[in-house]
Amino acid sequence: MSQRAFQDYYPDDLSYCYGCGRLNERGLQIKSYWDGDETVTAFTPAPYHMAIPGYVYGGLIASLIDCHSTGTAAAAAYREQGREMDSEPALRFVTASLHVDYLRPTPLGVPLEVRGRILEVKGRKVIVSATLSAGGEVCARGEVVAVQMPKHMFPKDLEG
Amino acid sequence: MSQRAFQDYYPDDLSYCYGCGRLNERGLQIKSYWDGDETVTAFTPAPYHMAIPGYVYGGLIASLIDCHSTGTAAAAAYREQGREMDSEPALRFVTASLHVDYLRPTPLGVPLEVRGRILEVKGRKVIVSATLSAGGEVCARGEVVAVQMPKHMFPKDLEG
Repeated sequence: MSQRAFQDYYPDDLSYCYGCGRLNERGLQIKSYWDGDETVTAFTPAPYHMAIPGYVYGGLIASLIDCHSTGTAAAAAYREQGREMDSEPALRFVTASLHVDYLRPTPLGVPLEVRGRILEVKGRKVIVSATLSAGGEVCARGEVVAVQMPKHMFPKDLEG
Repeated sequence: MSQRAFQDYYPDDLSYCYGCGRLNERGLQIKSYWDGDETVTAFTPAPYHMAIPGYVYGGLIASLIDCHSTGTAAAAAYREQGREMDSEPALRFVTASLHVDYLRPTPLGVPLEVRGRILEVKGRKVIVSATLSAGGEVCARGEVVAVQMPKHMFPKDLEG
């Protein structure tokens, strides 16, 4: 895709997240993009991201849904404000709650797709629903309530 | 503790879970124990398990709650049947749904404790609630609906 990923707009000091930070060398480094009014990310789990032989670890599924959804929340907030994602002040979101329904076992060894839909943007809160699919079949559904990161959590050199 | 961890009773072929499998060298290898009617695990995140500087990644918190709760579900099911955890047939649980409320940022660099309480054991389903604490302060609360793993998911050499 020719778009820049949401996560590639995050300031360096906020780019060490295990799930989506481009600077976390041990992390998953997921990349999320707009696809019309939905958002999408693709991720192929490693063999060790196993629950039981042949199936993906549920905690990884929760992690993908979580990070894709907080990235989606940030993108939605910038769009709501009519701003580019590299404009100041930086908006980043943290997770207030995460819910995942595991609908069927997720096969290991194939690319997974997570799609996000924005259910609500209200003040500092964004609610995102997500599906995780393998080979076109939905294996898990999630919902994330994301809230704009409070200022006291920002690393010091990013404070206004 | 002198007890064996729940996860140390799992058959070898079911011990590769990224979160709790003792044979997954890349995984978290959590260990869960009874503490009266509650269950407990301790885990100290690595520096790279970061969300933003100073705080633990939410996906890791979800993973700890998930695996500790499915382990708790298995232990509760054996106890309900009056059986030791190394008796046959093996009971293992998978996650049907996972909910986590992130109450406050979880500090990185200190041991975390996850405590589980069994809310319901009914047929093949066990519901577990969990708290995750750092330094005695509850940072996240979770609820897991765990279901006994269907036979078709067992690795072939464990099938009855």
